[in-house]
Amino acid sequence: MLDKSSFSAISTLLDDRVEGRSLPAGLYTREDVFQADMDVFFRKHWIYIGPECDVPEPGDATVIDIAGSSLIMLRDDDGEVRVFHNVCRHRGARILDAGTTVVSKLVCPYHQWTYELTGELAYAPHMGKDFDKTCNSLKPVNFRNIGGLIHVCLSDDPPADIAALEAVGRERLLPYDLRNTRVAHQTDLIENGNWKLTMENNRECYHCSANHPELCVSFIDLDFGFDPESLSPEDRETAARHEAMYAARTADWEAQGHPSAAIEQLTNCATNFRTQRLIISGAGESQTPDATAAVSKLLGIGRKDLGDMHLWGHNSWHHFMGDHIITAMVIPLGPDKTLLRMKWLVHKDAVEGVDYDFDKLTSVWIATNEQDGSLVERSHAGVSDPAYVPGMYSPFTETQLNWFAGWYVDRMRAHGY
Amino acid sequence: MLDKSSFSAISTLLDDRVEGRSLPAGLYTREDVFQADMDVFFRKHWIYIGPECDVPEPGDATVIDIAGSSLIMLRDDDGEVRVFHNVCRHRGARILDAGTTVVSKLVCPYHQWTYELTGELAYAPHMGKDFDKTCNSLKPVNFRNIGGLIHVCLSDDPPADIAALEAVGRERLLPYDLRNTRVAHQTDLIENGNWKLTMENNRECYHCSANHPELCVSFIDLDFGFDPESLSPEDRETAARHEAMYAARTADWEAQGHPSAAIEQLTNCATNFRTQRLIISGAGESQTPDATAAVSKLLGIGRKDLGDMHLWGHNSWHHFMGDHIITAMVIPLGPDKTLLRMKWLVHKDAVEGVDYDFDKLTSVWIATNEQDGSLVERSHAGVSDPAYVPGMYSPFTETQLNWFAGWYVDRMRAHGY
Amino acid sequence: MLDKSSFSAISTLLDDRVEGRSLPAGLYTREDVFQADMDVFFRKHWIYIGPECDVPEPGDATVIDIAGSSLIMLRDDDGEVRVFHNVCRHRGARILDAGTTVVSKLVCPYHQWTYELTGELAYAPHMGKDFDKTCNSLKPVNFRNIGGLIHVCLSDDPPADIAALEAVGRERLLPYDLRNTRVAHQTDLIENGNWKLTMENNRECYHCSANHPELCVSFIDLDFGFDPESLSPEDRETAARHEAMYAARTADWEAQGHPSAAIEQLTNCATNFRTQRLIISGAGESQTPDATAAVSKLLGIGRKDLGDMHLWGHNSWHHFMGDHIITAMVIPLGPDKTLLRMKWLVHKDAVEGVDYDFDKLTSVWIATNEQDGSLVERSHAGVSDPAYVPGMYSPFTETQLNWFAGWYVDRMRAHGY
Repeated sequence: MLDKSSFSAISTLLDDRVEGRSLPAGLYTREDVFQADMDVFFRKHWIYIGPECDVPEPGDATVIDIAGSSLIMLRDDDGEVRVFHNVCRHRGARILDAGTTVVSKLVCPYHQWTYELTGELAYAPHMGKDFDKTCNSLKPVNFRNIGGLIHVCLSDDPPADIAALEAVGRERLLPYDLRNTRVAHQTDLIENGNWKLTMENNRECYHCSANHPELCVSFIDLDFGFDPESLSPEDRETAARHEAMYAARTADWEAQGHPSAAIEQLTNCATNFRTQRLIISGAGESQTPDATAAVSKLLGIGRKDLGDMHLWGHNSWHHFMGDHIITAMVIPLGPDKTLLRMKWLVHKDAVEGVDYDFDKLTSVWIATNEQDGSLVERSHAGVSDPAYVPGMYSPFTETQLNWFAGWYVDRMRAHGY
Repeated sequence: MLDKSSFSAISTLLDDRVEGRSLPAGLYTREDVFQADMDVFFRKHWIYIGPECDVPEPGDATVIDIAGSSLIMLRDDDGEVRVFHNVCRHRGARILDAGTTVVSKLVCPYHQWTYELTGELAYAPHMGKDFDKTCNSLKPVNFRNIGGLIHVCLSDDPPADIAALEAVGRERLLPYDLRNTRVAHQTDLIENGNWKLTMENNRECYHCSANHPELCVSFIDLDFGFDPESLSPEDRETAARHEAMYAARTADWEAQGHPSAAIEQLTNCATNFRTQRLIISGAGESQTPDATAAVSKLLGIGRKDLGDMHLWGHNSWHHFMGDHIITAMVIPLGPDKTLLRMKWLVHKDAVEGVDYDFDKLTSVWIATNEQDGSLVERSHAGVSDPAYVPGMYSPFTETQLNWFAGWYVDRMRAHGY
Repeated sequence: MLDKSSFSAISTLLDDRVEGRSLPAGLYTREDVFQADMDVFFRKHWIYIGPECDVPEPGDATVIDIAGSSLIMLRDDDGEVRVFHNVCRHRGARILDAGTTVVSKLVCPYHQWTYELTGELAYAPHMGKDFDKTCNSLKPVNFRNIGGLIHVCLSDDPPADIAALEAVGRERLLPYDLRNTRVAHQTDLIENGNWKLTMENNRECYHCSANHPELCVSFIDLDFGFDPESLSPEDRETAARHEAMYAARTADWEAQGHPSAAIEQLTNCATNFRTQRLIISGAGESQTPDATAAVSKLLGIGRKDLGDMHLWGHNSWHHFMGDHIITAMVIPLGPDKTLLRMKWLVHKDAVEGVDYDFDKLTSVWIATNEQDGSLVERSHAGVSDPAYVPGMYSPFTETQLNWFAGWYVDRMRAHGY
């Protein structure tokens, strides 16, 4: 797609990246870099497109638009999840509109070409005797169901190292029984910034104490690094106590059969992820205004003392708690525009107003996302300024960003840029 | 305008076109193809810009913006239609605003340069003695009045094969006396799709039965082809009866001196058109909710039993009926944005509420255009998807599209792409 | 930034410019020319960014977004104006939002990096012992305070010929004591046209009599040239009387110690400006609906019989009158979009409703700017039309435009285009 001068400009920008510093401006702002990002990170890597509970029953179908593609995720008559391209094989019309629906077949509204939920073309009038329906099935999409989180790869050559993430899904996510959850709330927030700034913002908590009062009740910003010299004596003591507590709690959880230590695949890999069972602060149960569980009907194995199983992908983050799950999907819309779609999952039988209070469930992350959206916009405006030069990442609080930037450059190189 | 890499990309896309299938995606979606389309099909071919009844009286003037040009169509003091570029010869300011107005001279609001309705510069203050007004007339535009439908060519070398269309105008359109009509209603609908998808949609009725309940009362979708195998026994009988009826009615009309058989200039030509007198279904008079005439004061020769003289151009379609005319003009605004301007013409003396009911006159095509706009958007979204591959046109119902696609490729080639 | 084909296209357009005529279309309309314009005229020349009374007190700070840069203009604790890039040295976030505020330090909201009003980095937590704060001061911007009008140059190599404008500031503007004014009103008007059309429109009054009835009460359009042949005998007499009056008034003002004759640096220069003390028509005091002063508390030396000291820059115009000043800044937003920001300055102690009537103060230029915005839009639409060819400038009323166009071409050439 990109012409030679774009390739060469991008390659120079990748060369310009300095270890320990944020990326050169053009990698955040240029249209051609955005096209390259879509190609490399959203079409040739595994990406997260939503939880399987988006389509709980046979015939349920939902549309996800990402990286220029429109995808249909549905549950077929055998109860299996399937993912297809939302493109009629006749003249290409969109079959389903955005949103969620229930179908018995997939019927293109243009000329009534009709597909089974398996993707097979069942009916195509006026095409004549020589027309071979078997060559005109809906195009399927590679996907993996990882503990209930649906990941797709739009390329025919998907990275094999998804295997490590699949192991995490089996071992750490299945106890939350995502199959038996439902979406209690969803928000679509457009952040006026590059998707990598959205991801960088999510991978550090250096900005949390001054920007996220609601989240900081339950979330411990020091977990993601600190410079002891920057802390007051009291905070330094707190930090030390906290580190000791981590060792004890992790050992305790693991002894009970709940794997908890950090697993990271963040460098020298295609599929970028991190998971760890985190301690929740204060009441210790959930990311709510008072850190107690918001939902009385608990998920899966029914424990609310197992902290927060966090999971990062390169276009997602998730927190699995005893009473609910938040799951965020990042969908780039342009060099300076990114859709953040967040869903709050609760037990499928949990009833609003009976088993949970809506505001208690949702208010922390609604506030946090709005705050982050504003920071990402501020950040994008700055990197777009001719006066921007890549700044130093904190060696204590922004190590993850340094790794992410390095992984980004490596993956671009691996795909020929 | 376009650089070498665009030329070469477009040429490859034209090579990629496969007979019997829809066009390669880029021909519908790329910005450079859109620029080339404007140059070839809207600046170097004859295009339709509106009916002459837009300017019924001397001094009436209207502005048409198309293909980057702003045109003034006016009726001069001798009652003749004229078309000029809406660009002052001083510093280029627009002389008239969008819309219709009445003028005695054309006065540029910037510095009062003043032109006669013949285009001559009459007045230009402060320009000094050496200034030659005769070199600064408004630039005229090549145009032809074809049975009251004004066609222009923005090039200095207009295609000569407009002659065949002029013959049609003389023979088939003049009986409707478009000079003595008026615009009873006009709609501007923006379709979110490429102009060629708008035209393709207009040239098949494969989609009609499922999408156009209002139109199908008077319009017979089978007229534009069907696969007998796809019809029920009853529908097959209807179709056979209908074909027999066509032969009889056409012979009958022609015997009465009303040319009716199809005339097509659709391949191996510059000027693309088709006309035929079509049978109107049911009551047989007009494209209204019950197929009876909407207007009691009839057009021209005053017959409402002469069916529907349809006419296609490459940026227009028209239906001439006994009581009214609908005339549609297609104005591309971008690769994925097309303005459809439709006008409903009635006898100039027909009075709303007395001679016709507004809703009866307009409701069928208002509904049809909205339905088509939605289909074109759905279609454009699909061809923009990386999963789109050109699909097979039906050999029964989409022959006209196959010809249109072939004509498109031929004309691009003829202009050096 | 621009690729070779853009450079070559721009160079050809510059070659195409014909003396005595408006610029070739592409110089007004192309995106790449806009990028070049920003680079040459807004980053490598001195530009006006506002009056110093925008930040009257220590700690006052305001943000100006221009040519892709966001600038902080503030008054430091010593009462000195300073200008910085609004970009945090950490990861580049915007420090201040648009608008005006009061600060004791500049604190980046993202991670609380904190700068003194001198630009020094005072605080940056979690960066470790090896982090050198002294290398991370806010980047300063070259600026000059010219009689209270703040001019910046975003390049490291600012044109030296700003000296002539500085002399004008010292001699002609200081008597108005802009330091002791305040902003009584500000308007932001987006004109849908290229910035050069905004400037051309400002540099001729050929269009005034037909378009600016309010301004023409106090402003004399003939001052900016006329063709005697185009005037009525009465107007010719008026013009002759007026020229005689100019000679007398200018001599009189200068004898009183108020330099008044025209000073121009418009060709063969980098910094483009013109100033002259103009006669105000009618009551002769101010640009108000009846040409009497709007503000009873006069500026600076307290004279309302010294006419109108007009000043042009290449992105600004100003009128210094006895009772108030209007100051206009032109901020290009795109090839076809230009922000015109106008401020009305009055004595800092003048109170609305007591010392002046708001409508009397502001109505003339509010009307004039709206009229000009409409003309610029009309003009831009025209030069974007394929039918546009550069037209002849009037040798009497548009000499300044011919010079501006010539200066434009020269400066582009001087910067390698």
